[in-house]
Amino acid sequence: MEFKISKELITQLQDLIRSNNSTELEVLLADLHFADIAEILDELDIDDATYIFKVLESEKTAEILLEMEDDLREKILKRLSPKEIAEELDELETNDAADIIAELSQEKKEEVIQELEDVEHAKDIVELLRYKENTAGGLMHKELVKVNENWTVLHCVKEMRIQAENISRVHSIYVVDDEDRLKGRLSLKDLLVSSTKKPINDVYIRKLNSVNVDTEDVEVARIMQKYDLEAIPVTDEMGRLVGRITIDDIVDVIKEEADKDYQLAAGITQDVEAGDTVLELTKARLPWLLMGMFIEFFASFILKGNEEAFHTYQTLIIFVPLLSATAGNIGAQASALVVQGLANGTFTSFSKGYLAKELRVAMISGAIIALTVFGFHSMIYGEYMAGLAIGISLIVVIIFAGVLGTLIPMLLNRYKVDPALATGPFITTTNDVFGILLYFSIAKVILGI
Amino acid sequence: MEFKISKELITQLQDLIRSNNSTELEVLLADLHFADIAEILDELDIDDATYIFKVLESEKTAEILLEMEDDLREKILKRLSPKEIAEELDELETNDAADIIAELSQEKKEEVIQELEDVEHAKDIVELLRYKENTAGGLMHKELVKVNENWTVLHCVKEMRIQAENISRVHSIYVVDDEDRLKGRLSLKDLLVSSTKKPINDVYIRKLNSVNVDTEDVEVARIMQKYDLEAIPVTDEMGRLVGRITIDDIVDVIKEEADKDYQLAAGITQDVEAGDTVLELTKARLPWLLMGMFIEFFASFILKGNEEAFHTYQTLIIFVPLLSATAGNIGAQASALVVQGLANGTFTSFSKGYLAKELRVAMISGAIIALTVFGFHSMIYGEYMAGLAIGISLIVVIIFAGVLGTLIPMLLNRYKVDPALATGPFITTTNDVFGILLYFSIAKVILGI
Repeated sequence: MEFKISKELITQLQDLIRSNNSTELEVLLADLHFADIAEILDELDIDDATYIFKVLESEKTAEILLEMEDDLREKILKRLSPKEIAEELDELETNDAADIIAELSQEKKEEVIQELEDVEHAKDIVELLRYKENTAGGLMHKELVKVNENWTVLHCVKEMRIQAENISRVHSIYVVDDEDRLKGRLSLKDLLVSSTKKPINDVYIRKLNSVNVDTEDVEVARIMQKYDLEAIPVTDEMGRLVGRITIDDIVDVIKEEADKDYQLAAGITQDVEAGDTVLELTKARLPWLLMGMFIEFFASFILKGNEEAFHTYQTLIIFVPLLSATAGNIGAQASALVVQGLANGTFTSFSKGYLAKELRVAMISGAIIALTVFGFHSMIYGEYMAGLAIGISLIVVIIFAGVLGTLIPMLLNRYKVDPALATGPFITTTNDVFGILLYFSIAKVILGI
Repeated sequence: MEFKISKELITQLQDLIRSNNSTELEVLLADLHFADIAEILDELDIDDATYIFKVLESEKTAEILLEMEDDLREKILKRLSPKEIAEELDELETNDAADIIAELSQEKKEEVIQELEDVEHAKDIVELLRYKENTAGGLMHKELVKVNENWTVLHCVKEMRIQAENISRVHSIYVVDDEDRLKGRLSLKDLLVSSTKKPINDVYIRKLNSVNVDTEDVEVARIMQKYDLEAIPVTDEMGRLVGRITIDDIVDVIKEEADKDYQLAAGITQDVEAGDTVLELTKARLPWLLMGMFIEFFASFILKGNEEAFHTYQTLIIFVPLLSATAGNIGAQASALVVQGLANGTFTSFSKGYLAKELRVAMISGAIIALTVFGFHSMIYGEYMAGLAIGISLIVVIIFAGVLGTLIPMLLNRYKVDPALATGPFITTTNDVFGILLYFSIAKVILGI
C-alpha cells in the first residue's frame, strides 16, 4: 500500500515537463502524498523539480517543502522570489513557517516577512523566530485551541469550531483566564460528552503539565515521554499560554538526538547520511580520523622509547594490538553507558556509585581476559614471566580504560559539554595511548628491565 | 513543575508503612502521576513497594505497573496472586495487558486469563498474545472507534460517545463496511463540524494509510513518521480492521531501536543501562571484549611472523597503533553510515553507488593521513624509504577498512542479520587484523624484505 517511486513515473514526469504539459502533471501528482512528491522531486534535477514545484498549488507545495531533504529545499528556495516564498508560508503552521524562514539569508528573511499576507500569522512567525531552536519556544506551534474559564460548554464548542478550522490536530483544549494565563485543559472527548449548558469552570481539569518557553527540547521530550503526553502547552515567564508542542515534533527531537549520539559514537560530526556527497561525508569524518592520528603519534613515541624492552622480551610487542583493542572496546562501552545514563537521568553529573560499578565490571572482565591471554601465551611461547607481566599489565590497563571511559563523559557533562563527544574515536585512541604507556611501564617493572 | 523525589518523602512513606497507616498513604500519593509513583516505588525496598501497591486502587496501580522498570514489575507480579493480577489487567487497554501477561510464566499466564472479568477484554488479550512482539499485531491496541459506512453522522456521534468511553485518545474514527473491512476514516473534527443528518458515506475520507498485522514494527514507525501520522489502523489478511497503533507506541519503538543500535555500536548486547547490576552489565559487555580478544590473537601471530621486518626497519612497528586506530575508526564510520542508510531506506541491500562513494571518501582520507604520517616520519626519523612504505601501506589499509566497513553490514542485511551487529568492536578488530596483515605485506614488498 505504500508508494514506491518507479523509473517509469520519473520518465513520464520528465516527458511531461519537456512538453510543458502542466495539466497532465497536476493530474498525475494529484493523488500522491506530500512526502511522496518530496521524494520524487529529490530524484529529478533541480530545474525539473522547480518546474513541478511552480505548477502545483501553494497549498500542496507548502507541505511538500516541509517534507523534502534540506539541501533540495535550500536550492528550491533560492529559485523562488520572496513573494513566492511568502505564499508558501501563508499556508503553513507558524512553527513550520518559522523553521523555513530561519534557513533564509537575513536579507531575504526580511523581504519574505514583508510579503506575508496574514498579519496575525506574520506576527506569530516573527515571535517564534526569537526563540532558540533547541528550546520549547523554538519547537512550539502558535496554533492551539483555547477557551476562557468563564465560558459555557456551548460557547466553547462554538469557539472551538472556529479556532479548530486552522489546526490539523486538536488533542486538547486549553483553558485560560482573562489574562491569558494557563489554568487547565479540556479534552475534546469531555466536550463531546458534557451537557452544553455547563460552565467550563465545572468541567475542566486543573492539573496539567506545561513547559516554559526556555525549557530545552530534550527535556520537553523527556517529560512528554515520561507522562505519555501527546501535546504539552508552553507558557511564558508570566504563566501565559503562548504555544503548544505536539508529539510529532518530539519524535523528530528524539530521532535527531539519537542520530547525533550514534554518529558521535562512530566518529561522525554534523548530521550527514549515506545520501550526502563525498565532500560532506569527508568533512564530517576526516576531523575524527586526523584527531585519532595525532593522538596515535604519541603511541609511536612510546613504542619507540620501549624498543629495548620488546627486543629483550619479544612477545611484549605482539600483544599491543590486543591490548589496544580491548582498552578501546571497554572504554567505548563505558562511555556509551554514561551517555545513556545521563540522557535517561540515571545520574546527573559525577556518580561515585556508577564509577564503583564500572570498576567492578572492568575488574571481572580484565581478570578473565588477562587469564586467557596468560594461558594462551604460556601454551604457545612458554615464557611464563613475560606471560605474567603481560597478564598483569592487561588487567591494569583494562581497569584504567573502564575508569577513563566513565570519567571523561561525566566530566564533560559537568562542564556543559556534550558527553557524547567523549565516545567513539576519542575514547578509544586516548585509551590506546595511555594503555600502551601503562602496559610497558608495568611490564618493565615486573620483568626488571 | 515537574515532580522530584525527595528523601523526606521516602522517609515519610516508610514511616507510614511501618505504622500501617494506609489512609494517610493514599492521601499522600493521591495527587501524584502514575509515572512519579512508579519512580517512588523503585526507591523503596520490595516489601514496602508491594505494601503501597496493595493499598492503592487497581485503577491507579494498573497504570503504575505500566510505568515501572521491568525488574521491579517482575518482582511485584511475583508477589501478586493470579486474581490480583487479573484485577490490574481489567483496568488496562488490551495491548498493555497483553504485554504484561507475556512477561508471566506459562502457568501463571493461564491462571490470570481465567480470572479476567470482562470476557470481551479477555478475548482481545488472547488474540493479541498470538502476534509476534515486533510486528504491527504485537504493537496494536484493540481499542478504537469504528462506525459503519451506512450510518448517518448522528448515529455515528451516538455510537462514538459509547465507544469512546473506554478509549483514552480518539484521534480518528475508522469507517468499515458490513464485513468489518476498513474503508476509510473520519476525523473527530469533521464529525463536530458536519451536519448530523448527512450519511457517513458523504463525509468520510476514503484514502488512508494502514498496515497489516504482520508488518514489522520498525516499518510501521517509518511509515508513521514519513506521513506524519498520529495513529494508523491495522488490518488482517482479509482487510478487516483489527486494531490501531498510536504514535506513543511508536515513540517507544524508535527509542528502543535507536538504543539498540547505539549499544551495538559500543559493543553492548542486550538492553542494559547504567542502573543495572554488575552481573547484567558484564554479561552484556564481556562477550564483545572476548570476541575482540580472540580476533586480536591473529594480530599477535601476524606481528610474530613479521619480527624480522620490524627489526630491520624499526619504525615499521611503531606506527601499528596509528594504523589500527585509523583502520578501526574509518571502519566504524563506514558501518554506522550503512546502518543508518539501511534504516532510513536510502538503500535496501548492496548499493554499488554508496560503495563507490565510500571508496572516494576513504581515498581522500587515506591520502591526507598517509601524507601527514610520511611527513612526520621523514622529519623525525629521516628514513625516506621506510616512510614511503608506511605511507603507501596506510593508504591501502584505510581504503580496505572503509570498504570492509561498508560491505559487512550490507551483507549481513542481505542475509537478514541485523547489520548493527557489524558495527563497533567487530568491525574495528576485524579491520585491525586485516590492516596489520596488509600493512606488513605491502611494506615488505616496497622495502624488498
